[in-house]
Amino acid sequence: MNSFGHIFRLTSFGESHGPAIGGVIDGMPAGIEVDMDFVQQQLNRRRPGQSALTTSRQEQDQVEILSGIFEGRTTGTPIGFMVRNSNQHSSDYDNLRDVFRPSHADYTYQHKYGVRDHRGGGRSSARETISRVVAGAFAMLVLRQHGISIQAYTSQVGPIALPLPYSALDLSLTESNPVRCPHPDTAQQMTELIEKVKSEGDTIGGTITCVVKGCPAGLGEPVFDKLHAVLGQAMLSINACHGFDYGAGFEGINQRGSEQNDTPDSGTNNSGGIQGGISNGRDIYFRCLFKPVATLLREQSVLDKDGRITTLKARGRHDPCVLPRAVPIVETMAAITLLDFMLQQQIHKERLPQ
Amino acid sequence: MNSFGHIFRLTSFGESHGPAIGGVIDGMPAGIEVDMDFVQQQLNRRRPGQSALTTSRQEQDQVEILSGIFEGRTTGTPIGFMVRNSNQHSSDYDNLRDVFRPSHADYTYQHKYGVRDHRGGGRSSARETISRVVAGAFAMLVLRQHGISIQAYTSQVGPIALPLPYSALDLSLTESNPVRCPHPDTAQQMTELIEKVKSEGDTIGGTITCVVKGCPAGLGEPVFDKLHAVLGQAMLSINACHGFDYGAGFEGINQRGSEQNDTPDSGTNNSGGIQGGISNGRDIYFRCLFKPVATLLREQSVLDKDGRITTLKARGRHDPCVLPRAVPIVETMAAITLLDFMLQQQIHKERLPQ
Amino acid sequence: MNSFGHIFRLTSFGESHGPAIGGVIDGMPAGIEVDMDFVQQQLNRRRPGQSALTTSRQEQDQVEILSGIFEGRTTGTPIGFMVRNSNQHSSDYDNLRDVFRPSHADYTYQHKYGVRDHRGGGRSSARETISRVVAGAFAMLVLRQHGISIQAYTSQVGPIALPLPYSALDLSLTESNPVRCPHPDTAQQMTELIEKVKSEGDTIGGTITCVVKGCPAGLGEPVFDKLHAVLGQAMLSINACHGFDYGAGFEGINQRGSEQNDTPDSGTNNSGGIQGGISNGRDIYFRCLFKPVATLLREQSVLDKDGRITTLKARGRHDPCVLPRAVPIVETMAAITLLDFMLQQQIHKERLPQ
Amino acid sequence: MNSFGHIFRLTSFGESHGPAIGGVIDGMPAGIEVDMDFVQQQLNRRRPGQSALTTSRQEQDQVEILSGIFEGRTTGTPIGFMVRNSNQHSSDYDNLRDVFRPSHADYTYQHKYGVRDHRGGGRSSARETISRVVAGAFAMLVLRQHGISIQAYTSQVGPIALPLPYSALDLSLTESNPVRCPHPDTAQQMTELIEKVKSEGDTIGGTITCVVKGCPAGLGEPVFDKLHAVLGQAMLSINACHGFDYGAGFEGINQRGSEQNDTPDSGTNNSGGIQGGISNGRDIYFRCLFKPVATLLREQSVLDKDGRITTLKARGRHDPCVLPRAVPIVETMAAITLLDFMLQQQIHKERLPQ
Repeated sequence: MNSFGHIFRLTSFGESHGPAIGGVIDGMPAGIEVDMDFVQQQLNRRRPGQSALTTSRQEQDQVEILSGIFEGRTTGTPIGFMVRNSNQHSSDYDNLRDVFRPSHADYTYQHKYGVRDHRGGGRSSARETISRVVAGAFAMLVLRQHGISIQAYTSQVGPIALPLPYSALDLSLTESNPVRCPHPDTAQQMTELIEKVKSEGDTIGGTITCVVKGCPAGLGEPVFDKLHAVLGQAMLSINACHGFDYGAGFEGINQRGSEQNDTPDSGTNNSGGIQGGISNGRDIYFRCLFKPVATLLREQSVLDKDGRITTLKARGRHDPCVLPRAVPIVETMAAITLLDFMLQQQIHKERLPQ
Repeated sequence: MNSFGHIFRLTSFGESHGPAIGGVIDGMPAGIEVDMDFVQQQLNRRRPGQSALTTSRQEQDQVEILSGIFEGRTTGTPIGFMVRNSNQHSSDYDNLRDVFRPSHADYTYQHKYGVRDHRGGGRSSARETISRVVAGAFAMLVLRQHGISIQAYTSQVGPIALPLPYSALDLSLTESNPVRCPHPDTAQQMTELIEKVKSEGDTIGGTITCVVKGCPAGLGEPVFDKLHAVLGQAMLSINACHGFDYGAGFEGINQRGSEQNDTPDSGTNNSGGIQGGISNGRDIYFRCLFKPVATLLREQSVLDKDGRITTLKARGRHDPCVLPRAVPIVETMAAITLLDFMLQQQIHKERLPQ
Repeated sequence: MNSFGHIFRLTSFGESHGPAIGGVIDGMPAGIEVDMDFVQQQLNRRRPGQSALTTSRQEQDQVEILSGIFEGRTTGTPIGFMVRNSNQHSSDYDNLRDVFRPSHADYTYQHKYGVRDHRGGGRSSARETISRVVAGAFAMLVLRQHGISIQAYTSQVGPIALPLPYSALDLSLTESNPVRCPHPDTAQQMTELIEKVKSEGDTIGGTITCVVKGCPAGLGEPVFDKLHAVLGQAMLSINACHGFDYGAGFEGINQRGSEQNDTPDSGTNNSGGIQGGISNGRDIYFRCLFKPVATLLREQSVLDKDGRITTLKARGRHDPCVLPRAVPIVETMAAITLLDFMLQQQIHKERLPQ
Repeated sequence: MNSFGHIFRLTSFGESHGPAIGGVIDGMPAGIEVDMDFVQQQLNRRRPGQSALTTSRQEQDQVEILSGIFEGRTTGTPIGFMVRNSNQHSSDYDNLRDVFRPSHADYTYQHKYGVRDHRGGGRSSARETISRVVAGAFAMLVLRQHGISIQAYTSQVGPIALPLPYSALDLSLTESNPVRCPHPDTAQQMTELIEKVKSEGDTIGGTITCVVKGCPAGLGEPVFDKLHAVLGQAMLSINACHGFDYGAGFEGINQRGSEQNDTPDSGTNNSGGIQGGISNGRDIYFRCLFKPVATLLREQSVLDKDGRITTLKARGRHDPCVLPRAVPIVETMAAITLLDFMLQQQIHKERLPQ
């Protein structure tokens, strides 16, 4: 149950403080030129320690490819890869061995398996997303050959929300600031809020918006694997993601059908590029809600394994706000999902009689 | 791609105006006593024509079991079942053959397959959910033996929202009114709004909240198949569902970690019963956003297959608001998801050394 | 676990004496013209009572399509179908309720599920293969558009073996006799042997050979899902099939590599059209071993559910030799397997850069 | 398509001359004590260069575990692992870049993917089975806790066949000779034959027999995933395996039902421990046919990529007979298959009402 995708399929492994994080990419199209600089650059975008807004853990997160590439091109066989864990301070976590952090996976892992690697959260650590980013980068190599681009950005941090829809923003500005918000004024406010929250040993959440341009019509399977349903699962599977909507979404709840329908007259795209679970060829856009990180660098009451209440002030290196580093992960999960549906749809294309 | 679940697995078939809707339930535990009255009663809860708030299509939706039951008990072999379509007015849909309804699946199906059954929406019709309701009822037969109960209710219609959280409501009142809202005053307001919208040939959306009680700790798989991620896919796969959140969700976006964490002191359940993608033994609750139905009984501009703009006023029988009938479908998808994870977790239980 | 195939996928249901046998075909290409006469004719080839060599159970085995076809063509949505069980003599099986037939599934089903439908073998009955034949017929509709033909025949009954390889036979003679052997003299000997065995209340096994012509190179996945490995599973999943080989197979065990290799000089096809698990464009051929049917119409010692030895002489209607009726089932499983791999390979085709 | 198993599931990667061979084991029960010496010892049994009968390629084949183990026990999370390729003589294969070896995967890979890593056979190399052996060793750690043992041995090389059934052999002698045949006299004859064949630059095939003792009744899924059908796929997926039978198999083809049935009187086990696709609690036994290796160290005619006939005398290091090294691989695939079915059956156990 550590795989995602049907045809283009990532199987991941790895714990935060084990030897390595990695995975196997199966179903990669053959003959694709591999741009390893691009793959590494995507990893760098999620790397800790990239700005004052993130955890100070310093990892190089250098990916090593173990198979599936020959003379610079993919061979159609599975791509094994790994990233060694290097900057581990496992002793920072000694105090977590017998204690369950509130709103954290500590208790549920222990209950599920009867055993857990408590160091750095083990498999529940967000370091697990390294595998996703590598697979997503390979997916993007294919998608961009087909003119599909994916861009995510931080659209809200706590109460500070972007005042404009994606269509009114210059998304090329996203990477110009550490919070990854394409609206400089709002980015500045978000940055200040995160710094304040960090200085208080607290954490804060918000939303990321993602936009897909150039997606052809016809992707998505009509019943259980609707395009937006699988995108929803993909996003909700990212650590700390607790909500998802697309198109008009929750903000359109007061609209009637006559207002929300995208008629030829209206020129709107309230459907978010998906109808009946299948892409219609227009821009796809959706939002992901991220809750505040559970691990606080201030004291809070916790339960220990014997059910007693005690207090804990986490050591270790933790993000005050996951949003900036989650932006490339959202893009990654969108890329994996879209390529998988695109390969599925290749079949449908073949199905049509000429 | 018409299957859902890994171990407890529904494969569905059927179009709105074809001979039948049905499916196969695989992975049903053996030896379970089958209460066919309960199964039929669940179908009756989603049936059209049950109140003035729903479409007037009159279907008996009588389920016929074709296999997998012997002397009143499940045998562990697959349960085939079907519901004949009976009250079809296919000619109501003749005007849709060459026209694509706005924000509807008409265009995307045509594009995906190159052919489509336009009558009543074909496979994109909400009649497809009949298969889900039957499978969900069988899942519930098992879940209730384990003390797990699932209850959903309409929590918002357009701007009219329930003023109370689930824990302050008497959920046993849900079925006491046609809108399926457990708060009688709010239910009355919702009913009036839906009737008004219906009289205008328009449609309206809202939210359904679902609560699971008695779920044991340990359900959910930690990375891609997090419990809330698969619940999210399950819900987003229901026709017209465009958003999902759980626990504090979008409404907690302004909270800091120190406020949202469920410490032993706080007594809160902002995590919604799920931590790290795994149930923690407390109540699970989540929300589903339903957009207004796309098909309007009033004139709107539409595209035809040659790309020309024309106008359409739908005939046929359509709901002004899907929420009341979607309540049992939300419960159904929760039941299928939970039983599947429960069976997966049986394995984990066996894994532990004694 | 009642599904077969990844993209073209059959999910089956049904017991011998339940209401119906049926299934769902998922992944059927859209736009294919449906020849229902052909589908029914395939069912007729496996039907009981078609000759003096088979069981006298008289079933019409009339298939009813429940979804997925519109105006004579497939729509790409799942095809639900069923065949009602009609000629049931359930009381013939009353004496099997508490007894386990030797070498039969009675005991293992009881042990696996704790409950079993003993009438006619329940789900272990060869009537289950009806679902396969329907799915196989749909697969053949696609395969023959691509010039792929599949022909199986009885190649050995007990000690009576065909004296010639497939390439020296006129396979069009296969259907000219009830034993389905394309060599009239051998067919006559086989018929006489089966009649003799039947008259003694006994049963006999043998082999079926299957030949695929026109299969393009490139089908099969290279490691676990090698083309011959999945063909092997497909064949071994047919009731009473206990062995499989392809190409030179067991009969080539004495050859050295220098003899068995298909060099450009040798002109041989000892590889059976498959190399490294992938088709090479030449004829594919393989053999299936069928053991003698376990149910005898003569007295034998058996165990009852309390572990006591008793004797049993089966009533009911049973085949003395399954081979003649298994011929279309072998073809069916080959068709399902090949179409699934062909659809998988469509993806690989798309993968190649132009 | 590089995964095997449903619950206990291996996903493999790696080419013969790439950086590493490895995989991910998903579904490993938690809390199992890990005996790494045992895992390495299994790898040593398949290692090249272990005797004069095998290829002289010298690889240490040292496995490195990358995740899923904590303080000496499995954690229930995926086990990533790899074996570095070290003793590569890639230049030995330069002459294969543009040539297709007869009866080898060279041509079919090229045709399937449009590109191939020709060095050492790339992914079609038997080095791929390293991943299987590691996963099989982990499966065995669980199986032996449940009293299940698996033992394979070479039962035939070319015309030299073991004169006794498994039940009359002392299987503990299997490892006492390099050919892995538990009957010393026969082993000696086999060894001499292999040495003779090797000296001629030729190759030879044969059969491996495998016996499972202690398997509980109830494993296997009744229709497509019959226990022997999945065992068949598992074995046929091993490089050079071209045939499979179990129980009486091909050798019982002349028997009638009255002879082959395992009645309480007969005391036979012609069913090979499986009835209706489900284990019955008795010994399971089956045979695997291995063809002679295709790569010869003598000259033969071959096709090049332009379709011209040329001659090739392979360099590189190749086995004259795969059987001795395939013995642990057969055991491995049996172990993976059985543990997967055992975990599936845990579910069925839970299904039964108490």
